[in-house]
Amino acid sequence: MDDSSKNTAHSLSDLETPALVLDQNRMAQNVDRMRASLARFDVAFRPHVKTSKSIQVTRSTLGQASGPITVSTLKEAEYFSASGFTDILYAVGIVPGKFDHVIRLRRQGVKLTVILDSLEMAQALCGKARQENTRFDVMIEIDSDGHRSGVVPDSPQLLDIGRCLVAGGQYLAGVVTHAGNSYNCRSIPAIRQMAQQERDAAVGCADRLRAAGIACPTVSIGSTPTAMFADNLDGVSEVRAGVFVFGDLVMAGLGVCRQQDIALSVLTTVIGHQKEKGWIITDAGWMAMSRDRGTSKQAVDQGYGLICGLDGELLPDMLVVDANQEHGVIAHRFGDPAQTPALPIGTMLRILPNHACATGAQHSRYHVVNRNSSDIVEIWERFRGW
Amino acid sequence: MDDSSKNTAHSLSDLETPALVLDQNRMAQNVDRMRASLARFDVAFRPHVKTSKSIQVTRSTLGQASGPITVSTLKEAEYFSASGFTDILYAVGIVPGKFDHVIRLRRQGVKLTVILDSLEMAQALCGKARQENTRFDVMIEIDSDGHRSGVVPDSPQLLDIGRCLVAGGQYLAGVVTHAGNSYNCRSIPAIRQMAQQERDAAVGCADRLRAAGIACPTVSIGSTPTAMFADNLDGVSEVRAGVFVFGDLVMAGLGVCRQQDIALSVLTTVIGHQKEKGWIITDAGWMAMSRDRGTSKQAVDQGYGLICGLDGELLPDMLVVDANQEHGVIAHRFGDPAQTPALPIGTMLRILPNHACATGAQHSRYHVVNRNSSDIVEIWERFRGW
Repeated sequence: MDDSSKNTAHSLSDLETPALVLDQNRMAQNVDRMRASLARFDVAFRPHVKTSKSIQVTRSTLGQASGPITVSTLKEAEYFSASGFTDILYAVGIVPGKFDHVIRLRRQGVKLTVILDSLEMAQALCGKARQENTRFDVMIEIDSDGHRSGVVPDSPQLLDIGRCLVAGGQYLAGVVTHAGNSYNCRSIPAIRQMAQQERDAAVGCADRLRAAGIACPTVSIGSTPTAMFADNLDGVSEVRAGVFVFGDLVMAGLGVCRQQDIALSVLTTVIGHQKEKGWIITDAGWMAMSRDRGTSKQAVDQGYGLICGLDGELLPDMLVVDANQEHGVIAHRFGDPAQTPALPIGTMLRILPNHACATGAQHSRYHVVNRNSSDIVEIWERFRGW
Repeated sequence: MDDSSKNTAHSLSDLETPALVLDQNRMAQNVDRMRASLARFDVAFRPHVKTSKSIQVTRSTLGQASGPITVSTLKEAEYFSASGFTDILYAVGIVPGKFDHVIRLRRQGVKLTVILDSLEMAQALCGKARQENTRFDVMIEIDSDGHRSGVVPDSPQLLDIGRCLVAGGQYLAGVVTHAGNSYNCRSIPAIRQMAQQERDAAVGCADRLRAAGIACPTVSIGSTPTAMFADNLDGVSEVRAGVFVFGDLVMAGLGVCRQQDIALSVLTTVIGHQKEKGWIITDAGWMAMSRDRGTSKQAVDQGYGLICGLDGELLPDMLVVDANQEHGVIAHRFGDPAQTPALPIGTMLRILPNHACATGAQHSRYHVVNRNSSDIVEIWERFRGW
């Protein structure tokens, strides 16, 4: 979309495509559902802003001007702190090359907490704190599901790291874990079990630290699936989740939301047809959708996305079967041209994404609409980069 | 990277990661190789700027201040025309929603050519031209390989479209095709055959138009693989190619470049280890690399990328085996921890991408270095969006 159309468009149908659309009613409902799930427990909520990278979306999520948040980059910490979000957990392992940036933010008044999972890094952090005559807020990352980073729960390193941090004068805020493998579950019972495992790993590590005389005030866990289906959060103090705010086809495939809950879509225009193949060509390729094919590992593969009309209602069994940089190929799931609606050149469609975090990242702004409407009620910026 | 480090970094080792790195010597060599390939024929060169989205990269490619270019979005047309590139082919099928933008650019003096592949669109274009008392430069898109858009070469629609455009007072610049299926070839002979097919389809359509009394001055073909390996471009007037300028692992897997020719890489830092699994965790996840897994369909799957040291030299058989949003997991190809180099926390690495167009798009600037050096000699901006 060029700047002139951005400033004058009142309706989605005025936009140059592709463009990112956000249904704020669906989003509000998604937020309510997550809040209702967490209200079953005595836990704080620290949403992950990596999904939206938007001040307005995060304000809507927290229902207030600011609040505790989780970030995936220091750039997110910069942006959000500039808008009054000062309680920030940077949930990617800290490295020495980022110490100065963290210290700069903390000296600006940001309560920025970093995470680490090795004695090596704890020692480096203590050294930097001594050198700069400062201290850090730190959490120890726990590997609750074997999918990525973190100290293995029964590892002797846990206590070594805790002792090193305390002896080095750091504020050990607690333990943090993320059961990212919940995205690979095949059933709700499997998600419930993963949630229990996530909770048990984190609480177990907190207990081990406390038994060794090391204070561990905060136990932070979370992913959208486990936050939605946890049965027991005893001992957990805060929950993090990100993608719930928009939902996406991966979450719908997991049963964490319904397809009709997905608040994010990519507006596109039909640019041509290959009629004998039953193909409809659009101007939303992988640049607009991202290359994310998260549903390809699920029971039902949704290609590069499912197709809705301009009103956001699904066109049954129509999906993006292939994508080039600025071209999408839409076809019927069962290759049945007879079932394919007539969508002449110029028809505008909305595509539901596999993965809201990845698709959102391809765009610079949200065109905010209400449910079943194509009137643009607001434009919200989103940022990117590091 | 935050703005303060951007402005003060003199070496890659000063940067906050992830960050995009461009080896300008490798790039120059890639440009020379493409120019040498095309010098075998009497053809013009119209590079596709969708790969770099950078004025400086394109100037380096063309060896002059401006020149004919291909774009994939009207935003690219805006940016490049503002820097003096006024001969522009917009190589995605035009739709009515973009007419006004095209007319605006043309009235600013841009020789912007649009493409279409249906009588329906040709009629709409003629109608708009009448209404606005203007005319368009148009090319007819030909489907030379069945992979996407375009008129099938022997279709009667070809002449109908040509006649419609001429009768409607448009300037029919010629025919255009892109053998995108060349990316799926399994051998150099297969690429040569695809190049012949691409040329034959385009020249054949030009001949059909001319035989019907319709002028067809330009025959435009091209993709990086076919441009590099074509044996015969008789009747072709211009060649387009994009990804050649950087190269990537998909092109290396095809035999179109070597791994050591790849000019683009993502700088990352080791943030942790899962030693018993042989995993090295970095801060370059799919946000920095893109979700593109183009090599997964090739004979050798390179994961999310191959690993180099800070000097750009490959670490044998080390690759990114998995990626989350801001985490990459590096491991040895054969899962052999004994072969895995010791890469302590804080070690900086460079990752060669599957697909330069997709990886580049995740970043806002190039940190330009010379071969085997980590000194940053220039910073070049790249733009994004629509």
